[in-house]
Amino acid sequence: MTRIKKVYLEANEMPRQWYNLAPDLPTPMQPPLGPDGKPITPEMLAPVFPMNLIEQEVSTERWIDIPEEILEMLALYRATPLVRAYELEAALKTPARIYYKNESVSPAGSHKLNTAIAQAWYNKQFGITKLTTETGAGQWGSALAQACALIGLECKVFMVRISFDQKPFRKLLMNTYGATCIASPSNETNTGREILAKMPDTPGSLGIAISEAVEAAVTDPEGKTRYSLGSVLNHVMLHQTIIGLEVKKQLAKFGEKNPDTVIACVGGGSNFAGISFPFIYEKLHGANIDIIPVEPTSCPTLTRGPFLYDHGDTAKMTPLLPMYTLGHSFIPEPIHAGGLRYHGMSPLVSAALRDKLINPMAIDQIECYEAGILFARTEGIVPAPETTHAIAGAIREAKKAKEEGKEKVILFNFSGHGLMDMVGYDKYLTGKLVKHEMDDEELFKFLKELENYPKPQ
Amino acid sequence: MTRIKKVYLEANEMPRQWYNLAPDLPTPMQPPLGPDGKPITPEMLAPVFPMNLIEQEVSTERWIDIPEEILEMLALYRATPLVRAYELEAALKTPARIYYKNESVSPAGSHKLNTAIAQAWYNKQFGITKLTTETGAGQWGSALAQACALIGLECKVFMVRISFDQKPFRKLLMNTYGATCIASPSNETNTGREILAKMPDTPGSLGIAISEAVEAAVTDPEGKTRYSLGSVLNHVMLHQTIIGLEVKKQLAKFGEKNPDTVIACVGGGSNFAGISFPFIYEKLHGANIDIIPVEPTSCPTLTRGPFLYDHGDTAKMTPLLPMYTLGHSFIPEPIHAGGLRYHGMSPLVSAALRDKLINPMAIDQIECYEAGILFARTEGIVPAPETTHAIAGAIREAKKAKEEGKEKVILFNFSGHGLMDMVGYDKYLTGKLVKHEMDDEELFKFLKELENYPKPQ
Repeated sequence: MTRIKKVYLEANEMPRQWYNLAPDLPTPMQPPLGPDGKPITPEMLAPVFPMNLIEQEVSTERWIDIPEEILEMLALYRATPLVRAYELEAALKTPARIYYKNESVSPAGSHKLNTAIAQAWYNKQFGITKLTTETGAGQWGSALAQACALIGLECKVFMVRISFDQKPFRKLLMNTYGATCIASPSNETNTGREILAKMPDTPGSLGIAISEAVEAAVTDPEGKTRYSLGSVLNHVMLHQTIIGLEVKKQLAKFGEKNPDTVIACVGGGSNFAGISFPFIYEKLHGANIDIIPVEPTSCPTLTRGPFLYDHGDTAKMTPLLPMYTLGHSFIPEPIHAGGLRYHGMSPLVSAALRDKLINPMAIDQIECYEAGILFARTEGIVPAPETTHAIAGAIREAKKAKEEGKEKVILFNFSGHGLMDMVGYDKYLTGKLVKHEMDDEELFKFLKELENYPKPQ
Repeated sequence: MTRIKKVYLEANEMPRQWYNLAPDLPTPMQPPLGPDGKPITPEMLAPVFPMNLIEQEVSTERWIDIPEEILEMLALYRATPLVRAYELEAALKTPARIYYKNESVSPAGSHKLNTAIAQAWYNKQFGITKLTTETGAGQWGSALAQACALIGLECKVFMVRISFDQKPFRKLLMNTYGATCIASPSNETNTGREILAKMPDTPGSLGIAISEAVEAAVTDPEGKTRYSLGSVLNHVMLHQTIIGLEVKKQLAKFGEKNPDTVIACVGGGSNFAGISFPFIYEKLHGANIDIIPVEPTSCPTLTRGPFLYDHGDTAKMTPLLPMYTLGHSFIPEPIHAGGLRYHGMSPLVSAALRDKLINPMAIDQIECYEAGILFARTEGIVPAPETTHAIAGAIREAKKAKEEGKEKVILFNFSGHGLMDMVGYDKYLTGKLVKHEMDDEELFKFLKELENYPKPQ
């Protein structure tokens, strides 16, 4: 058999450093701001995160060593395979060569475990015994629960109530890993109790769940609890760069040089950063690579939002972050790609767009499900609703290559599988999904609140 | 990093032939018998299976070439990783080295895809355009649906009604692959209509679903439909031997020779045959290997059933097969390991036991869930309820090695993940599971019906 379908890496070929984009950005990163409009200092974050992760958050080192013990734990499922999508190419009759990085082989089913393991390990090193976090659809909560089980930390997950009720398997998965998972708003925090008193039937929101998880961390009387976030922050992007660093070595094994196009879906930005930042490095060193984050038309942060200082959460608990945003009060349509329903964007990904290093694209969910089904029937794996956005973007680019008659190399990140998200497929197949476009009026409404906020450069 | 967690195989290292145990058995295989007590001929099976698979079913060749196109499709997820369970070993403080073959990385989530792809391919070669099958919990139906999508065949799955209602995600997964999945008994077959007329509220059974799927195949007026079975038959065992053949090469990469112990769960026998038959070959050539199929105490076919001729299905539609059996009328307790609730056993696996080549073990579901949770919290992957039986067996052997102070090499098959089976874990964690033992009286009751059946030697 001469046709190579996929390649892995041997243990001795694994990347041993993460890549930090911050020092390579043409325009320097701007700091998060506190309620007084002044930059946040590392010390101010100390009740929320351990100092070793805060150091990574503000680091200006380009390469950061991956500790040996983290590499050993990641070896459970890494290197993930880089796969050539021969059957998808054939179905599209495209001259493009399409490759996908299959992050769905992680036991948690997505790329989220890459940072969950790293964060749990750094917290353990710092003497922390318990982590709190929030989760929406449940991918992140499951990943952190698993990492805490592997490393030996307690874990408490505040899950948005509507998802808690609709996706009971996710809670059971966290329980199986030994974590506690409770519906948010809950009676365990002041924030939760106040909201429940006013709105006893609220479905909850990520903003509320973040507030509860942070409160539960900072109010531990023994000071042994910290909070963990699955996307947006610089250190989370850092941990995910192992994806793209592996891809570089794997493309070489396929006999390829740099891809012409790199594609990933974006919500908070972490799977996109993971596969693309190492190729932004190449672009900054002269390579001609089109780097495309794909977002839903119903939550068009990068394609239609402005670059502003805004809060990371609805409840305005977090510092102001310099980012593309639709406004912290914006509540996206209830599309099935729950992980892409976020009003803001990672400051590092935002900085890359401000510096014109990436070319975002927005695609409606119907085109995405159509792409996901074509992928499942040709390449065999059912994608998560989020991941269908990357596939739809790759299919658009492959069709363009066909029109242009170009032998392009297209790479995308297969960020997670959809085995726990079958309801969306059912709705698509039975014609129950609708298109969601955001009109200008709606966009303006939520941004108005930010008029008097400080402006980033 | 010097610690090797897992190994794959390169494309050029893949096994290129399947291993057929039949010609190596000390006592020759005995043929299936028809209703008249006479051996079934290949021609009699032709309306049900394509002739190229019937030839494999009765083949006495030791090695059978794997067609190139099948190898290419298997390459989507094969070789599956062979993984060293360092963290489980540490938790058990055992001197044993434990390895598991991770079949859960297949897109369908289990080993079932290995034979689904092969069967779909051979049917396509023979000019068949549509396959029918039955499924209980849904693993097999999902795998065949996926294989038919990849190869371009129609697929109709008759799913036992109680599972159809309880596990809607499985049906949606089959739909996503383009297959039709209907609850059995259905109105689409004579068998289904007759049963519904008598018992409109029946939960269905695998026996009924098999009858419907066979009827739907043989009554196609164009003769272009055949039936496909996911376990029990010789050609299914054959296709699964790629598992153990890969393991042999992978153990060598870890620097190991033959394992001391090979363990897998058994229902119909296919994942057990897959990992163990290549090591039975070694045993027949002088190696000292303990080969242990693990079954539930509630369905103790190999540990307590006799070796008899019996029907493969409850409705007595199939030929009589020479096998260990609890009687075709036996309905096992509703344990969560649905794939192990089968009254009979693969004739090849049965022959291996009759010839004392394997040493079966029965374990109760509570010990199995306990093992599954320890595995999830140490090695990170949540096992299917079926797979927990193999893990529980491996843990027993690892503890024995500790007592004896022996550095044993223990190998087990991680046949599938449990991401779609979380309800059982919830019941275990909340103390709702009970032990199931079969008493002698119950055993005798179902076997009495077989008293006047022909006897195998």
